[in-house]
Amino acid sequence: MTKTSKNIAIIGSGLVGSLLAVYLRKKGHSVTVFDRRPDIRTIEFSGRSINLAMSNRGWRSLQKVGLEEQIKEIAIPLDKRAMHVNDKPVYFQKYGKGGEAIWSISRGILNKRMIDLAEDTGAVFRFNEKVWDVNLPEAKIYTGESEKSEWKEYQYDIIFGCDGAFSRVRHKMQRRSRFDYSQDFLDVGYKELTIPANEDGTHKLDKNSFHIWPRGKFMLIAMPNIDGSFTCTLFLPFEGEVSFEKITTPEEAKAFFKEYFPNVKKEIENLSQDFFKNPTSAMVTMKCYPWTYWNKVALVGDSAHAIVPFYGQGMNAGFEDIYVLNELMEIHGDDWDTIFSEYQKTRKPNADAIAELSYRNFVEMSSKTANPKFLLQKKIEKWFATKHPEKWIPVYSRVTFSDRPYAEALAIGDKQEAIMKEVMQMPNIEEKWDSKGVEEMIIGLLDNQI
Amino acid sequence: MTKTSKNIAIIGSGLVGSLLAVYLRKKGHSVTVFDRRPDIRTIEFSGRSINLAMSNRGWRSLQKVGLEEQIKEIAIPLDKRAMHVNDKPVYFQKYGKGGEAIWSISRGILNKRMIDLAEDTGAVFRFNEKVWDVNLPEAKIYTGESEKSEWKEYQYDIIFGCDGAFSRVRHKMQRRSRFDYSQDFLDVGYKELTIPANEDGTHKLDKNSFHIWPRGKFMLIAMPNIDGSFTCTLFLPFEGEVSFEKITTPEEAKAFFKEYFPNVKKEIENLSQDFFKNPTSAMVTMKCYPWTYWNKVALVGDSAHAIVPFYGQGMNAGFEDIYVLNELMEIHGDDWDTIFSEYQKTRKPNADAIAELSYRNFVEMSSKTANPKFLLQKKIEKWFATKHPEKWIPVYSRVTFSDRPYAEALAIGDKQEAIMKEVMQMPNIEEKWDSKGVEEMIIGLLDNQI
Repeated sequence: MTKTSKNIAIIGSGLVGSLLAVYLRKKGHSVTVFDRRPDIRTIEFSGRSINLAMSNRGWRSLQKVGLEEQIKEIAIPLDKRAMHVNDKPVYFQKYGKGGEAIWSISRGILNKRMIDLAEDTGAVFRFNEKVWDVNLPEAKIYTGESEKSEWKEYQYDIIFGCDGAFSRVRHKMQRRSRFDYSQDFLDVGYKELTIPANEDGTHKLDKNSFHIWPRGKFMLIAMPNIDGSFTCTLFLPFEGEVSFEKITTPEEAKAFFKEYFPNVKKEIENLSQDFFKNPTSAMVTMKCYPWTYWNKVALVGDSAHAIVPFYGQGMNAGFEDIYVLNELMEIHGDDWDTIFSEYQKTRKPNADAIAELSYRNFVEMSSKTANPKFLLQKKIEKWFATKHPEKWIPVYSRVTFSDRPYAEALAIGDKQEAIMKEVMQMPNIEEKWDSKGVEEMIIGLLDNQI
Repeated sequence: MTKTSKNIAIIGSGLVGSLLAVYLRKKGHSVTVFDRRPDIRTIEFSGRSINLAMSNRGWRSLQKVGLEEQIKEIAIPLDKRAMHVNDKPVYFQKYGKGGEAIWSISRGILNKRMIDLAEDTGAVFRFNEKVWDVNLPEAKIYTGESEKSEWKEYQYDIIFGCDGAFSRVRHKMQRRSRFDYSQDFLDVGYKELTIPANEDGTHKLDKNSFHIWPRGKFMLIAMPNIDGSFTCTLFLPFEGEVSFEKITTPEEAKAFFKEYFPNVKKEIENLSQDFFKNPTSAMVTMKCYPWTYWNKVALVGDSAHAIVPFYGQGMNAGFEDIYVLNELMEIHGDDWDTIFSEYQKTRKPNADAIAELSYRNFVEMSSKTANPKFLLQKKIEKWFATKHPEKWIPVYSRVTFSDRPYAEALAIGDKQEAIMKEVMQMPNIEEKWDSKGVEEMIIGLLDNQI
């Protein structure tokens, strides 16, 4: 060990904690990962849990430490949305240019693989050990059986809180003065359901699509698993006319699917059984600041910025935190004060931007994707972007297929939206949407904005 | 006791907890008030701590239970602002119409008196007893020496959390799903200083004024005490060019006052000593929702809605919570589900409104009160309001001297501000501000808004 190598604790063995362990081991630090849960690799597990969409930022962060290829083995590329509107054929929307795709991965399978890979680099994992308290200025953590039991004290040089949206490490920071914090829940909840594989192991729906059944105030989505199944997620208001609150019996669940999702109803496995066996979960946007304490403690991933899942960027944003931390470690060496200070200053505006974009995508996916005017607008944007790829990169592409800052994507997206608002008000836009006039108008508006 | 009388715990013996105890005792409930601190009446205390401005909403809430006159004995009416700008004579601004005033009261003196009055009604106070945990659905509280000591369990019918901005009761609610919460700190802190009385016990500055020394990004204020002294509060950024961070020695403190507050410097008692003896405190806006749990637990006052102090409405808003709760108890009798549900639905928008108004008043008091254009705008508003009192009630009066909802004051204030923005853009407004033309323009704009 060089004298700049540190003794580091990571709280949380999830995706962000595991990847950070790999990065820190590669820099020569000593790394111990604590998790209050048992080792996910020892748990009986269907492989069908929540699905993640890995995109450019996530891949880049894996690639930097040589893990990209190993993870691609357990991922399925999705190059388009498949829109399911009742009484109409399935409508496909390509995500980007040729070859651009998001990748469907099971959270459980990925997490197991990431812990294996982190252990291979020499990180030590301590499962079933819950951190109850943190001494921030001295970088000490306290673990034990319960809040009132005897605690064990550990002393580290640096502590990373990778313990998710309800972070214990952040909780300790939150009790200090001048710590800004907010948690905002959506009035919409979600529930996981499953479409099993065909008997021959193939997928029942197009395997390389992200499937969406938009229904105004609610929607169903499906993402493929490598075992041939699909993980479906039903997003539905907790209360109101059509809501989880109103579905309390198997008959009501069947009637709900029959009315709103007739074509997928027969595919969903044990619909009425799963519906009541699986929990209804809430979604939260969590923001806070600062993210660090001196050169001792830093929050990374959901513990610093939990977002709603509608842009598929939660894990990608967390992995990008690590990528940025690594860049700063390379620039500033052993100066952890500067590393942490630059880290939070750089990442905070981008975390706020992806929180906003994710919330907006919720509105777009659930209510606008079935709206003809919205679809026309998207069509015009795509047509113009294809003709002038240097002038118009859609926000979705900036977020998903680039590594430019999220805050930039949000700002440019707002400008594009203002332009499209004017374009959509042109008389007879439905007929002349791909005319020279529209093209020139967009170019003129783009030039005016500069 | 009638069968509808409840066994009620109030957590927190501050102003809101004490007044709520009086109200609940008058309804025949059994009331125990817990506080982790010692009895404030037993503490050596200068009587000069933080000052409060009691206005209409506070008085109305006291009057309802017959306490108004007893509290007026310890209060001083302020009917105007006294603006201190360097090298200019003091400028006075009347707050409202004749007789309208806010009342300066010492928090400590008021709190002692309120606890006496609550005890007179039969409320029981348990001081030095800290609540560590709350069982929300069963309305149980747990107290003890420390978080890890043996706890004592109490069972109640209803629990009220009146335990302030860092409420333990709310903390327990916050850990549930779908609890929205935010805390936002200002980058400006404050420090208390004192101007002592003259030797004959009279006040060194005008006794019936709220004194302000506006200095752009910071300011000093002073409010009178009944012992002839003034409590001053210096509001100053924590960091930056002129900031608490930059004042670290007695010499720097003296130089700061000499430069920015030369006329008041000599009056401040032990300036350099107090400056470093008294703490620098932070200010937070705290919002949350819901405020209640079933018919078991409710948050009242700062625990539900902490605001920055720049409208002098923190205590008034908390007292009004109690007034509204009492109205609902009178309507809904023993139906606590409805009382709590209506309470939070009614009060939440008003709490959000006074939070916004308080934040805006911070901007106004610190930066705009020295701006000639702003002063002219205020002069025009006052002139028009005097001519047409039925058409134009200033927001400050709506908040301070009326009992209409805060949310209404905010909405009407926004409309008035839009009108004044147009008026201030009239050419030569400085010369013709009190002309027939301006009067007619305002009337026209008011008519257009309806």
